[in-house]
Amino acid sequence: MENITVLGAGSWGTALAIVLADNRHNVKLWGHRSTLIDEINGNRRNEKYLPGIDLPERIKGVSQLDESLKDTSTIVLAVPTKAIRGVLAEVKNIAIEPLTIVHVSKGIEPDTLLRISEIIEEEMPSHLLKDVVVLSGPSHAEEVSQRQITTVTSSSKNMKAAEYVQDLFINHYFRVYTNPDIIGVEIGGALKNIIALAAGITDGLGYGDNSKAALITRGLAEIARLGSVMGGNPLTFSGLTGIGDLIVTCTSVHSRNWRAGNLLGKGQNLDEVLENMGMVVEGVRTTKAAFQLAQKYNVKMPITEALYDVLFNDRLPKDAVDTLMARVKTHEMEDLVNIMEKR
Amino acid sequence: MENITVLGAGSWGTALAIVLADNRHNVKLWGHRSTLIDEINGNRRNEKYLPGIDLPERIKGVSQLDESLKDTSTIVLAVPTKAIRGVLAEVKNIAIEPLTIVHVSKGIEPDTLLRISEIIEEEMPSHLLKDVVVLSGPSHAEEVSQRQITTVTSSSKNMKAAEYVQDLFINHYFRVYTNPDIIGVEIGGALKNIIALAAGITDGLGYGDNSKAALITRGLAEIARLGSVMGGNPLTFSGLTGIGDLIVTCTSVHSRNWRAGNLLGKGQNLDEVLENMGMVVEGVRTTKAAFQLAQKYNVKMPITEALYDVLFNDRLPKDAVDTLMARVKTHEMEDLVNIMEKR
Repeated sequence: MENITVLGAGSWGTALAIVLADNRHNVKLWGHRSTLIDEINGNRRNEKYLPGIDLPERIKGVSQLDESLKDTSTIVLAVPTKAIRGVLAEVKNIAIEPLTIVHVSKGIEPDTLLRISEIIEEEMPSHLLKDVVVLSGPSHAEEVSQRQITTVTSSSKNMKAAEYVQDLFINHYFRVYTNPDIIGVEIGGALKNIIALAAGITDGLGYGDNSKAALITRGLAEIARLGSVMGGNPLTFSGLTGIGDLIVTCTSVHSRNWRAGNLLGKGQNLDEVLENMGMVVEGVRTTKAAFQLAQKYNVKMPITEALYDVLFNDRLPKDAVDTLMARVKTHEMEDLVNIMEKR
Repeated sequence: MENITVLGAGSWGTALAIVLADNRHNVKLWGHRSTLIDEINGNRRNEKYLPGIDLPERIKGVSQLDESLKDTSTIVLAVPTKAIRGVLAEVKNIAIEPLTIVHVSKGIEPDTLLRISEIIEEEMPSHLLKDVVVLSGPSHAEEVSQRQITTVTSSSKNMKAAEYVQDLFINHYFRVYTNPDIIGVEIGGALKNIIALAAGITDGLGYGDNSKAALITRGLAEIARLGSVMGGNPLTFSGLTGIGDLIVTCTSVHSRNWRAGNLLGKGQNLDEVLENMGMVVEGVRTTKAAFQLAQKYNVKMPITEALYDVLFNDRLPKDAVDTLMARVKTHEMEDLVNIMEKR
């Protein structure tokens, strides 16, 4: 039984707080909006993000960051990637002892091109940072909050830390595996949102399942190509945080990246889509970052490039998809062999 | 423009006949039921298998096998795996010149444990067999018949033959890649039906998308493990005929293997399911064959083994799935590393 603080009371932060509470840990769930925190403590609900789910008593909502960080050395960072630096800037002014930071966000920072664990290492002074662990995998928050069976991966440069986080979270419905390849885990988790946006677009345009399967397959190849060049293990992309997360994000109506893509395919522009969603769509920023990474590492990423043009250069979705699908490529293995050879 | 004969007027044979006719080949479509052939020639329809689709004039239905084989040296074999030996026994008595046989079935023969191309090589005398090519990939017949964009792989021991078949079929909506790894292509195509049955079961039992993503991921690992030991290239399982076909079969309501599993999950037994389906469910036979292959090659295939027990040993689906999901496995990479090391 430990004291754990979850920063971010959105759907994923709240769902993970439930898992920790089910495992008899004392959980402080921090969110900056006091009305949300009042609802959590008063009604034991977070209706906006997890409608209909009763929150266990062991979860205590907290709206003051300093209060949330008392008496804990483990925090779960569940804020949108865009907010991470801002939150950590405050955390480092409050923290006294070294923290284990478990991040559960999926993204790459545009321009700096840093993975989330690298951003954390950059923001936190080393005497306040014990370990960085990423928890990632095919896991819709809604289903986790309903205690549906879910499998995720815990990864860190320090395997002892990955195993510590595995122990914190594992239970009969939340299965946690470990994987030492933090680069592959973070890249797979971030880039699948790009393919989910693209899959949403093809669905929105009325393409069928055959096309979507091809898109997902080519998307996995593209992710593995970049991720391997960046130092990830190609095998990680065939695991839970690669193909597993990609499948769930591309084929489920729960996925907000898919939903955003679907609206784009149906003719809305990016501003309209983001307004209608009312939630963060990580894939949009990640597309920009991945586009820059593809240039930096000189890796071909046709799906990412097509989506970049749709999002930021007003290219028509149908035009982009048709071009993608028409690409002549006679030998399927070429890409895959290249992945292995670049190792 | 060539004369091509398609043997088997089910949904896939008919859809492929449409592709060939769209490419201006003369297509004879053979089926043994004369009422079906009369419908094809009279109404230009095959309502049972492809409802609502008008058949091009270049498709001629034929109910006599000897007539269908006149003036052609290329046949597309689109009959259920169970019927292949019987049909080939007749073909070899009729054929005069060496044939290129393109097979499009997905299965492994129980007991003999042969792939389809091996069955063809066994049945056909070598002077009547020019080449065997497999055409496989994520491709629901319904969508192909609607000219929705689809990508498939053409594979053969003889790459010239694979390229010949690529040329026959390729057009703007039907993209054909080549892959020299016929073992990997055939194993991936056959074994994905097992995972689709299992995915149907978990959906029928009410498990969520998180569980299904985990199942598909573990299923791919299991397929790659066996397929690699049998001589397939591990990379093939990350391609269209591996993960691509697996995704489409596990996540689409078009898939009859998924539908059969779904009925099993909802409480019907195997006999009831097969009666209700009224179509061949290849995954059932393939489960038996894969179970035998796992024993022969001493490869762990937990999903296949659990499904085998459900299908043939009256094990309760919920019991089998719960056991699968509860399997303790702390290191996700183990399996995948094993795949590569066994090469």
